[in-house]
Amino acid sequence: MNEADADGWQVSEEEVDHIPFSHTRYPEKEMLKRSQEFYELLNKRRSVRFISNEQVPMEVIDNVIKAAGTAPSGAHTEPWTFVVVKDPDVKHKIREIVEEEEEINYLKRMGPQWVSDLKKLRTKWIKEYLDTAPVLILIFKRVHGFAANGKKKIHYYNEISVSIACGILLAALQMTKTVPKELASIYLPTL
Amino acid sequence: MNEADADGWQVSEEEVDHIPFSHTRYPEKEMLKRSQEFYELLNKRRSVRFISNEQVPMEVIDNVIKAAGTAPSGAHTEPWTFVVVKDPDVKHKIREIVEEEEEINYLKRMGPQWVSDLKKLRTKWIKEYLDTAPVLILIFKRVHGFAANGKKKIHYYNEISVSIACGILLAALQMTKTVPKELASIYLPTL
Repeated sequence: MNEADADGWQVSEEEVDHIPFSHTRYPEKEMLKRSQEFYELLNKRRSVRFISNEQVPMEVIDNVIKAAGTAPSGAHTEPWTFVVVKDPDVKHKIREIVEEEEEINYLKRMGPQWVSDLKKLRTKWIKEYLDTAPVLILIFKRVHGFAANGKKKIHYYNEISVSIACGILLAALQMTKTVPKELASIYLPTL
Repeated sequence: MNEADADGWQVSEEEVDHIPFSHTRYPEKEMLKRSQEFYELLNKRRSVRFISNEQVPMEVIDNVIKAAGTAPSGAHTEPWTFVVVKDPDVKHKIREIVEEEEEINYLKRMGPQWVSDLKKLRTKWIKEYLDTAPVLILIFKRVHGFAANGKKKIHYYNEISVSIACGILLAALQMTKTVPKELASIYLPTL
Protein backbone atom coordinates (compact mmCIF):
# COMPACT_ATOMS: atom_id res chain seq x y z
CA MET A 1 0.00 0.00 0.00
CA ASN A 2 1.53 3.30 -0.96
CA GLU A 3 0.90 6.79 0.36
CA ALA A 4 -1.73 7.63 -2.21
CA ASP A 5 -3.67 4.43 -1.54
CA ALA A 6 -3.72 5.20 2.16
CA ASP A 7 -5.43 8.50 1.29
CA GLY A 8 -8.27 6.67 -0.47
CA TRP A 9 -6.99 7.32 -3.99
CA GLN A 10 -6.90 4.55 -6.53
CA VAL A 11 -3.53 2.91 -7.25
CA SER A 12 -2.88 2.46 -10.95
CA GLU A 13 -3.17 -1.01 -12.52
CA GLU A 14 0.28 -2.49 -12.85
CA GLU A 15 1.04 -4.14 -16.19
CA VAL A 16 -0.55 -3.60 -19.56
CA ASP A 17 0.57 -5.28 -22.76
CA HIS A 18 2.70 -3.41 -25.23
CA ILE A 19 0.87 -3.09 -28.55
CA PRO A 20 3.14 -2.20 -31.49
CA PHE A 21 2.07 0.92 -33.38
CA SER A 22 2.02 0.95 -37.15
CA HIS A 23 0.89 3.67 -39.50
CA THR A 24 0.81 4.44 -43.16
CA ARG A 25 2.33 7.61 -44.51
CA TYR A 26 1.22 9.37 -47.67
CA PRO A 27 3.71 10.41 -50.36
CA GLU A 28 4.87 14.02 -49.87
CA LYS A 29 2.65 15.38 -52.62
CA GLU A 30 -0.43 13.81 -51.05
CA MET A 31 0.53 15.05 -47.55
CA LEU A 32 0.82 18.53 -48.95
CA LYS A 33 -2.56 18.33 -50.66
CA ARG A 34 -4.30 16.92 -47.57
CA SER A 35 -2.79 19.48 -45.19
CA GLN A 36 -3.75 22.29 -47.57
CA GLU A 37 -7.34 21.07 -47.97
CA PHE A 38 -7.79 20.58 -44.23
CA TYR A 39 -6.55 24.10 -43.51
CA GLU A 40 -8.84 25.60 -46.16
CA LEU A 41 -11.87 23.78 -44.82
CA LEU A 42 -11.11 24.65 -41.18
CA ASN A 43 -10.50 28.26 -42.15
CA LYS A 44 -14.13 28.52 -43.23
CA ARG A 45 -15.33 27.93 -39.65
CA ARG A 46 -16.76 30.94 -37.84
CA SER A 47 -18.00 31.38 -34.26
CA VAL A 48 -21.52 32.40 -35.27
CA ARG A 49 -24.35 33.38 -32.88
CA PHE A 50 -27.19 32.66 -35.31
CA ILE A 51 -27.87 28.95 -35.45
CA SER A 52 -30.04 26.98 -37.86
CA ASN A 53 -32.88 24.92 -36.43
CA GLU A 54 -32.36 22.17 -39.03
CA GLN A 55 -32.15 18.69 -37.53
CA VAL A 56 -28.86 16.77 -37.48
CA PRO A 57 -28.81 12.93 -37.42
CA MET A 58 -27.91 11.66 -33.95
CA GLU A 59 -25.39 9.28 -35.49
CA VAL A 60 -23.44 12.30 -36.72
CA ILE A 61 -23.46 13.79 -33.22
CA ASP A 62 -22.27 10.44 -31.84
CA ASN A 63 -19.43 10.31 -34.36
CA VAL A 64 -18.13 13.83 -33.68
CA ILE A 65 -18.18 13.14 -29.93
CA LYS A 66 -16.37 9.84 -30.48
CA ALA A 67 -13.77 11.75 -32.52
CA ALA A 68 -13.37 14.26 -29.65
CA GLY A 69 -12.89 11.33 -27.28
CA THR A 70 -9.76 10.27 -29.16
CA ALA A 71 -7.95 13.33 -27.73
CA PRO A 72 -4.83 12.72 -25.65
CA SER A 73 -5.20 13.45 -21.92
CA GLY A 74 -2.97 13.67 -18.84
CA ALA A 75 -1.97 10.08 -17.91
CA HIS A 76 -4.77 8.96 -20.30
CA THR A 77 -7.46 9.81 -17.75
CA GLU A 78 -9.95 11.13 -20.37
CA PRO A 79 -11.40 13.70 -17.96
CA TRP A 80 -14.44 14.70 -20.03
CA THR A 81 -18.16 14.07 -20.18
CA PHE A 82 -20.20 15.03 -23.23
CA VAL A 83 -23.92 15.48 -22.69
CA VAL A 84 -26.25 15.75 -25.69
CA VAL A 85 -29.47 17.67 -25.11
CA LYS A 86 -32.42 17.66 -27.55
CA ASP A 87 -35.37 18.25 -25.21
CA PRO A 88 -36.65 21.85 -25.69
CA ASP A 89 -37.41 22.35 -21.98
CA VAL A 90 -33.96 21.18 -20.90
CA LYS A 91 -32.36 23.33 -23.61
CA HIS A 92 -34.29 26.32 -22.30
CA LYS A 93 -33.21 25.66 -18.71
CA ILE A 94 -29.61 25.50 -19.89
CA ARG A 95 -30.08 28.79 -21.72
CA GLU A 96 -31.32 30.36 -18.47
CA ILE A 97 -28.28 29.12 -16.52
CA VAL A 98 -25.86 30.28 -19.23
CA GLU A 99 -27.51 33.70 -19.56
CA GLU A 100 -27.52 34.20 -15.81
CA GLU A 101 -23.78 33.47 -15.61
CA GLU A 102 -23.07 35.50 -18.73
CA GLU A 103 -24.95 38.51 -17.36
CA ILE A 104 -22.67 38.40 -14.30
CA ASN A 105 -19.70 38.26 -16.71
CA TYR A 106 -20.85 41.43 -18.46
CA LEU A 107 -21.99 43.36 -15.38
CA LYS A 108 -19.20 42.59 -12.94
CA ARG A 109 -17.15 39.36 -13.19
CA MET A 110 -15.00 40.12 -16.23
CA GLY A 111 -14.60 43.89 -15.84
CA PRO A 112 -14.98 46.93 -18.15
CA GLN A 113 -12.02 46.03 -20.37
CA TRP A 114 -13.62 42.72 -21.33
CA VAL A 115 -16.94 44.40 -22.14
CA SER A 116 -15.06 46.95 -24.25
CA ASP A 117 -13.01 44.24 -26.02
CA LEU A 118 -16.18 42.35 -26.93
CA LYS A 119 -17.97 45.44 -28.29
CA LYS A 120 -16.75 44.94 -31.84
CA LEU A 121 -17.97 41.33 -31.80
CA ARG A 122 -21.47 42.60 -30.90
CA THR A 123 -22.09 39.77 -28.48
CA LYS A 124 -24.45 40.02 -25.52
CA TRP A 125 -25.55 37.83 -22.67
CA ILE A 126 -28.82 36.89 -24.40
CA LYS A 127 -28.35 33.59 -26.24
CA GLU A 128 -31.48 32.78 -28.25
CA TYR A 129 -29.54 30.20 -30.24
CA LEU A 130 -29.49 27.84 -27.26
CA ASP A 131 -33.24 27.42 -27.88
CA THR A 132 -32.93 27.42 -31.68
CA ALA A 133 -30.22 24.79 -32.12
CA PRO A 134 -31.73 21.31 -32.49
CA VAL A 135 -28.96 19.80 -30.38
CA LEU A 136 -26.69 21.14 -27.63
CA ILE A 137 -23.47 19.36 -26.75
CA LEU A 138 -22.53 20.21 -23.16
CA ILE A 139 -18.90 19.60 -22.33
CA PHE A 140 -17.93 18.99 -18.72
CA LYS A 141 -14.44 18.70 -17.34
CA ARG A 142 -14.13 16.18 -14.54
CA VAL A 143 -11.55 17.23 -12.01
CA HIS A 144 -11.36 13.65 -10.73
CA GLY A 145 -12.84 10.26 -11.60
CA PHE A 146 -13.54 6.96 -9.84
CA ALA A 147 -11.97 3.54 -10.33
CA ALA A 148 -14.17 0.42 -10.55
CA ASN A 149 -13.74 -0.09 -6.77
CA GLY A 150 -15.07 3.41 -5.98
CA LYS A 151 -11.73 4.98 -5.15
CA LYS A 152 -10.92 8.41 -6.50
CA LYS A 153 -8.69 8.74 -9.56
CA ILE A 154 -6.78 12.01 -10.14
CA HIS A 155 -7.34 13.72 -13.50
CA TYR A 156 -4.12 15.49 -14.43
CA TYR A 157 -4.21 18.59 -16.64
CA ASN A 158 -7.98 18.16 -16.89
CA GLU A 159 -8.77 21.61 -18.31
CA ILE A 160 -6.05 21.37 -20.98
CA SER A 161 -7.16 17.83 -21.89
CA VAL A 162 -10.84 18.77 -22.23
CA SER A 163 -9.96 21.84 -24.32
CA ILE A 164 -7.88 19.69 -26.69
CA ALA A 165 -10.90 17.39 -27.06
CA CYS A 166 -13.01 20.51 -27.85
CA GLY A 167 -10.57 21.44 -30.62
CA ILE A 168 -11.00 17.99 -32.16
CA LEU A 169 -14.79 18.26 -31.76
CA LEU A 170 -14.79 21.56 -33.68
CA ALA A 171 -12.62 20.01 -36.40
CA ALA A 172 -14.99 17.01 -36.62
CA LEU A 173 -18.05 19.28 -36.91
CA GLN A 174 -16.37 21.36 -39.59
CA MET A 175 -15.24 18.23 -41.48
CA THR A 176 -18.83 17.01 -41.39
CA LYS A 177 -20.07 20.48 -42.35
CA THR A 178 -22.36 20.69 -39.40
CA VAL A 179 -22.24 24.26 -38.15
CA PRO A 180 -20.59 24.24 -34.71
CA LYS A 181 -22.17 26.38 -32.08
CA GLU A 182 -20.27 28.61 -29.74
CA LEU A 183 -18.46 26.77 -26.98
CA ALA A 184 -20.75 27.75 -24.12
CA SER A 185 -19.50 25.06 -21.76
CA ILE A 186 -17.05 27.36 -20.02
CA TYR A 187 -19.91 29.09 -18.23
CA LEU A 188 -21.32 25.88 -16.82
CA PRO A 189 -20.36 24.30 -13.50
CA THR A 190 -18.06 21.28 -13.74
CA LEU A 191 -19.33 17.76 -13.09
CA MET B 1 -10.84 57.48 -22.01
CA ASN B 2 -12.17 54.64 -19.95
CA GLU B 3 -10.82 53.01 -16.82
CA ALA B 4 -8.94 50.31 -18.66
CA ASP B 5 -7.24 52.86 -20.94
CA ALA B 6 -6.07 54.82 -17.91
CA ASP B 7 -4.32 51.67 -16.71
CA GLY B 8 -2.30 51.44 -19.91
CA TRP B 9 -4.40 48.70 -21.48
CA GLN B 10 -5.48 48.93 -25.09
CA VAL B 11 -9.07 49.98 -25.79
CA SER B 12 -10.74 47.82 -28.41
CA GLU B 13 -11.28 49.16 -31.94
CA GLU B 14 -14.82 50.39 -32.27
CA GLU B 15 -16.63 49.36 -35.42
CA VAL B 16 -15.97 46.45 -37.73
CA ASP B 17 -18.09 45.58 -40.75
CA HIS B 18 -20.58 42.78 -40.54
CA ILE B 19 -19.71 40.06 -43.04
CA PRO B 20 -22.57 37.65 -43.78
CA PHE B 21 -21.72 34.00 -43.16
CA SER B 22 -22.69 31.35 -45.66
CA HIS B 23 -21.95 27.67 -45.66
CA THR B 24 -22.78 24.56 -47.60
CA ARG B 25 -24.26 21.53 -45.91
CA TYR B 26 -23.86 17.97 -47.12
CA PRO B 27 -26.86 15.65 -47.52
CA GLU B 28 -27.43 13.54 -44.37
CA LYS B 29 -25.92 10.41 -45.87
CA GLU B 30 -22.73 12.27 -46.76
CA MET B 31 -22.55 13.92 -43.30
CA LEU B 32 -22.81 10.50 -41.74
CA LYS B 33 -20.07 9.08 -43.95
CA ARG B 34 -17.74 12.02 -43.34
CA SER B 35 -18.23 12.01 -39.56
CA GLN B 36 -17.63 8.25 -39.48
CA GLU B 37 -14.45 8.45 -41.57
CA PHE B 38 -13.07 11.34 -39.53
CA TYR B 39 -13.66 9.45 -36.29
CA GLU B 40 -12.02 6.28 -37.64
CA LEU B 41 -8.96 8.19 -38.83
CA LEU B 42 -8.59 10.16 -35.59
CA ASN B 43 -9.05 6.97 -33.58
CA LYS B 44 -5.83 5.63 -35.12
CA ARG B 45 -3.78 8.39 -33.46
CA ARG B 46 -1.58 7.34 -30.56
CA SER B 47 0.64 9.35 -28.20
CA VAL B 48 3.82 7.54 -29.14
CA ARG B 49 7.27 8.16 -27.64
CA PHE B 50 9.23 6.67 -30.53
CA ILE B 51 9.44 9.16 -33.36
CA SER B 52 10.64 8.64 -36.93
CA ASN B 53 13.52 10.77 -38.17
CA GLU B 54 12.02 11.00 -41.67
CA GLN B 55 11.83 14.54 -43.03
CA VAL B 56 8.48 16.32 -43.41
CA PRO B 57 8.02 19.11 -46.00
CA MET B 58 7.97 22.53 -44.32
CA GLU B 59 4.86 23.43 -46.30
CA VAL B 60 3.00 20.64 -44.51
CA ILE B 61 4.16 22.01 -41.14
CA ASP B 62 3.01 25.49 -42.20
CA ASN B 63 -0.42 24.16 -43.21
CA VAL B 64 -1.06 22.27 -39.96
CA ILE B 65 -0.07 25.35 -37.94
CA LYS B 66 -2.32 27.52 -40.10
CA ALA B 67 -5.16 25.06 -39.44
CA ALA B 68 -4.47 25.28 -35.67
CA GLY B 69 -4.60 29.08 -35.97
CA THR B 70 -8.25 28.89 -37.11
CA ALA B 71 -9.23 27.90 -33.54
CA PRO B 72 -11.70 30.13 -31.71
CA SER B 73 -10.26 32.13 -28.79
CA GLY B 74 -11.52 34.35 -25.97
CA ALA B 75 -12.62 37.68 -27.56
CA HIS B 76 -10.74 36.52 -30.70
CA THR B 77 -7.37 37.35 -29.14
CA GLU B 78 -5.57 34.33 -30.67
CA PRO B 79 -3.22 33.97 -27.68
CA TRP B 80 -0.78 31.50 -29.23
CA THR B 81 2.67 31.43 -30.77
CA PHE B 82 3.90 28.41 -32.70
CA VAL B 83 7.65 28.02 -33.06
CA VAL B 84 9.09 25.50 -35.51
CA VAL B 85 12.54 24.15 -34.69
CA LYS B 86 14.69 22.13 -37.11
CA ASP B 87 18.21 23.00 -35.96
CA PRO B 88 19.71 19.95 -34.16
CA ASP B 89 21.51 22.07 -31.54
CA VAL B 90 18.37 24.03 -30.69
CA LYS B 91 16.33 20.81 -30.56
CA HIS B 92 18.88 19.37 -28.15
CA LYS B 93 18.76 22.45 -25.91
CA ILE B 94 14.97 22.15 -25.83
CA ARG B 95 15.30 18.49 -24.90
CA GLU B 96 17.54 19.48 -21.99
CA ILE B 97 15.01 22.05 -20.72
CA VAL B 98 12.09 19.63 -21.06
CA GLU B 99 13.97 16.78 -19.36
CA GLU B 100 15.06 19.00 -16.50
CA GLU B 101 11.45 20.10 -15.87
CA GLU B 102 10.14 16.56 -16.35
CA GLU B 103 12.66 15.16 -13.88
CA ILE B 104 11.29 17.61 -11.29
CA ASN B 105 7.78 16.37 -12.19
CA TYR B 106 8.79 12.77 -11.48
CA LEU B 107 10.92 13.40 -8.40
CA LYS B 108 8.81 15.95 -6.52
CA ARG B 109 6.43 18.29 -8.37
CA MET B 110 3.63 15.89 -9.31
CA GLY B 111 3.76 13.52 -6.32
CA PRO B 112 3.89 9.71 -5.86
CA GLN B 113 0.34 9.12 -7.17
CA TRP B 114 1.24 10.66 -10.54
CA VAL B 115 4.37 8.54 -10.82
CA SER B 116 2.31 5.46 -9.97
CA ASP B 117 -0.44 6.39 -12.47
CA LEU B 118 2.13 6.79 -15.24
CA LYS B 119 3.81 3.45 -14.51
CA LYS B 120 1.61 1.47 -16.90
CA LEU B 121 2.38 3.95 -19.70
CA ARG B 122 6.10 3.27 -19.17
CA THR B 123 7.04 6.91 -19.68
CA LYS B 124 10.12 8.50 -18.15
CA TRP B 125 11.72 11.89 -18.06
CA ILE B 126 14.27 10.99 -20.75
CA LYS B 127 12.95 12.12 -24.14
CA GLU B 128 15.29 10.95 -26.90
CA TYR B 129 12.61 11.65 -29.47
CA LEU B 130 13.12 15.40 -29.11
CA ASP B 131 16.48 14.86 -30.83
CA THR B 132 15.14 12.26 -33.29
CA ALA B 133 12.14 14.15 -34.67
CA PRO B 134 13.09 16.19 -37.74
CA VAL B 135 10.84 19.06 -36.61
CA LEU B 136 9.59 20.26 -33.21
CA ILE B 137 6.54 22.50 -32.97
CA LEU B 138 6.73 24.48 -29.73
CA ILE B 139 3.41 25.90 -28.60
CA PHE B 140 3.41 28.94 -26.33
CA LYS B 141 0.41 30.48 -24.65
CA ARG B 142 0.59 34.26 -24.44
CA VAL B 143 -1.06 35.54 -21.30
CA HIS B 144 -1.29 39.02 -22.84
CA GLY B 145 -0.51 40.68 -26.15
CA PHE B 146 0.28 44.17 -27.44
CA ALA B 147 -1.76 46.46 -29.68
CA ALA B 148 -0.07 48.33 -32.56
CA ASN B 149 0.49 51.32 -30.26
CA GLY B 150 2.37 49.22 -27.70
CA LYS B 151 -0.42 49.02 -25.13
CA LYS B 152 -1.18 45.73 -23.47
CA LYS B 153 -4.11 43.62 -24.69
CA ILE B 154 -5.70 41.10 -22.31
CA HIS B 155 -5.88 37.50 -23.56
CA TYR B 156 -9.02 35.96 -22.07
CA TYR B 157 -9.18 32.20 -21.45
CA ASN B 158 -5.69 31.91 -22.95
CA GLU B 159 -4.93 28.37 -21.73
CA ILE B 160 -8.30 27.03 -22.96
CA SER B 161 -7.88 28.80 -26.30
CA VAL B 162 -4.36 27.48 -26.89
CA SER B 163 -5.42 23.96 -25.94
CA ILE B 164 -8.31 24.08 -28.44
CA ALA B 165 -5.76 25.12 -31.10
CA CYS B 166 -3.61 22.12 -30.05
CA GLY B 167 -6.60 19.82 -30.61
CA ILE B 168 -7.00 21.16 -34.13
CA LEU B 169 -3.24 20.81 -34.70
CA LEU B 170 -3.39 17.13 -33.71
CA ALA B 171 -6.39 16.60 -36.02
CA ALA B 172 -4.52 18.31 -38.88
CA LEU B 173 -1.42 16.15 -38.33
CA GLN B 174 -3.52 13.01 -38.23
CA MET B 175 -5.46 14.05 -41.36
CA THR B 176 -2.14 14.57 -43.12
CA LYS B 177 -0.82 11.31 -41.70
CA THR B 178 2.19 12.94 -40.20
CA VAL B 179 2.89 11.25 -36.89
CA PRO B 180 2.16 13.78 -34.14
CA LYS B 181 4.64 13.95 -31.33
CA GLU B 182 3.71 14.22 -27.70
CA LEU B 183 2.52 17.66 -26.63
CA ALA B 184 5.61 18.66 -24.71
CA SER B 185 4.79 22.37 -24.58
CA ILE B 186 3.14 22.14 -21.20
CA TYR B 187 6.54 21.79 -19.54
CA LEU B 188 7.94 24.93 -21.16
CA PRO B 189 7.76 28.46 -19.77
CA THR B 190 5.19 30.75 -21.41
CA LEU B 191 6.18 33.57 -23.76
